[in-house]
Amino acid sequence: MSKGYAVPSAGAPLEPFAFERRDLRESDVALDILFAGICHSDIHQAREEWGPALFPMVPGHEIVGRVTSIGNAVTKFAVGDLIGVGVFIDSCRKCPQCLSGLQQYCVEGMTGTYNTLERDGKTVAFGGYSDSFVIDQDYAVRVPESLKLEGVAPLMCAGVTLYSPLKHWKAGPGKRVAIMGLGGLGHMGVKFAHALGAHVTVLSHSEGKRADALSMGADAFVVMNSDEAFAANANSFDLILNTVSADLVLEKYLQLLDVDGALVVIGLPSKPYQFGAGTLLGKRRSIGGSMIGGMPELQEMLDFCGEHGIVSDVEVIAADYINTAYDRTVASDVKYRFVIDASTF
Amino acid sequence: MSKGYAVPSAGAPLEPFAFERRDLRESDVALDILFAGICHSDIHQAREEWGPALFPMVPGHEIVGRVTSIGNAVTKFAVGDLIGVGVFIDSCRKCPQCLSGLQQYCVEGMTGTYNTLERDGKTVAFGGYSDSFVIDQDYAVRVPESLKLEGVAPLMCAGVTLYSPLKHWKAGPGKRVAIMGLGGLGHMGVKFAHALGAHVTVLSHSEGKRADALSMGADAFVVMNSDEAFAANANSFDLILNTVSADLVLEKYLQLLDVDGALVVIGLPSKPYQFGAGTLLGKRRSIGGSMIGGMPELQEMLDFCGEHGIVSDVEVIAADYINTAYDRTVASDVKYRFVIDASTF
Repeated sequence: MSKGYAVPSAGAPLEPFAFERRDLRESDVALDILFAGICHSDIHQAREEWGPALFPMVPGHEIVGRVTSIGNAVTKFAVGDLIGVGVFIDSCRKCPQCLSGLQQYCVEGMTGTYNTLERDGKTVAFGGYSDSFVIDQDYAVRVPESLKLEGVAPLMCAGVTLYSPLKHWKAGPGKRVAIMGLGGLGHMGVKFAHALGAHVTVLSHSEGKRADALSMGADAFVVMNSDEAFAANANSFDLILNTVSADLVLEKYLQLLDVDGALVVIGLPSKPYQFGAGTLLGKRRSIGGSMIGGMPELQEMLDFCGEHGIVSDVEVIAADYINTAYDRTVASDVKYRFVIDASTF
Repeated sequence: MSKGYAVPSAGAPLEPFAFERRDLRESDVALDILFAGICHSDIHQAREEWGPALFPMVPGHEIVGRVTSIGNAVTKFAVGDLIGVGVFIDSCRKCPQCLSGLQQYCVEGMTGTYNTLERDGKTVAFGGYSDSFVIDQDYAVRVPESLKLEGVAPLMCAGVTLYSPLKHWKAGPGKRVAIMGLGGLGHMGVKFAHALGAHVTVLSHSEGKRADALSMGADAFVVMNSDEAFAANANSFDLILNTVSADLVLEKYLQLLDVDGALVVIGLPSKPYQFGAGTLLGKRRSIGGSMIGGMPELQEMLDFCGEHGIVSDVEVIAADYINTAYDRTVASDVKYRFVIDASTF
């Protein structure tokens, strides 16, 4: 029996929940969860803000734990290994995207870690707010032993969500990268972009997080609260990562891009964005979108974190604090991610 | 004295106009114009639809002609050479873009071929609707003698406007390219994308141009007049070039892009575009913009046209037909570009 926390119905508070994990299949590994991160998307789904959801729901897709047993066909992991599980637990494995390691863009849709049925069409996928997990070896990654494990959990979603576009849009030496918003996502962007050698600027709405940003590796911190601030930073960046899901005037941020610059959207605002075509044409700018990362990139990111000593800045909580943590996450009152100590389930 | 046609005041019909070209500077070449194309942007400026304009205006930035004399410092061209002039006649020559051959994105702004003052701040730039021209050698390109010259003129704007994004976004073998709209711009896109080896689809609003599209090298022609047509072509393209400046629902076209696909805007609609961030995120799609091409790319394109026998399909007119041609261009009643025979000025 697994112990965890579940959302009994849309918008209801989470409460203790006992359930069975699926039986270990040949290529599965079982793990004891050590830490599970709280992602804003957990809250959207628990509150059914993203369409019909499956209840009771055990949220959680930022999982780190240690392998306790393995199926007969498992070759990638051994008992005792430290592993991570992220936003998906399966995909079709045969489409061009799956075959090229971009499982997050699987033609049939990736199979989420929770709030869905598995690919067998009947097993309910329960997420990481729990003391144990079962995962196919192909959808888990190896975690460097050197890292602080509570800070590893958020790498599995928040981390790779920033790492992937930084790599895809070639952040590195000589590149001027701006991160919009210093929250659970943004603070990972600052750490990665800095470690990749880029010049990093944080674009924020207030002075409050300046010291944090600089200590994480930002080279500059700009409060974007006036037309003057926008004018002073016009045509200044090669890559802007927008982690802000609040509605904003995209056009003003596009004008901060230099020739061939790209603004990449990571957060999901409720309203459509607007832009004038001329803003793109005049400097061959572009707008992109990016969603987490595939399995090879998840492993690459964790190896990179091991080399550079990168983890998320977290506030560790006990299971009975999850409902409060949800409210604080919505209020952006966390530095910078809540992580549940799985021994408290 | 140069003879040409000018717009006397905003929106007024063009009429015969005699004027002096600037004296030949050391690095200038003078040319007799043979053909000058009519670009839709000529009409926008003649009618002052793009902000305050300079009158009397001699429009025209699709120019092909033969060199009649050269300044003392000219090394690139000799008398008798066939040359082309496009959308700009100068730029700052020292910014990163100018130094890397992207003069169209010059930090100080390119100097247009007409409707502006030259960089000296006083000489009025008169465009190509005329029998002669004077141009700095660094802003002219060599035209292959093998091409039909009336079809070369539109290459200088319409041509490079399509060639540049096709090259930048890597159209070629194995790439599925869609061209939105088969007009003055679009028909060049079909020819170039086909010659580059891409699979080319024309997305049109009606059946009317199917035969033309296929004869120009399109592999497919789809009438996008129903939800079924959009559904049937979802996730089907790597690159979509939008030459349509009419307002449209961008979102529906974004959904035609496969993973990592890009929709590149070339036309300038009057209203802002809208899109939902999720449409980009779910497949790492992007939206870009592109504007003409720089000097090295103009030359590269003309050489490519020489190798592949590519010119624009045109209707040659006499100068006294320009006003009618304007109305027909606005009504999309031309296959596919009007070109003025400069001997009729």
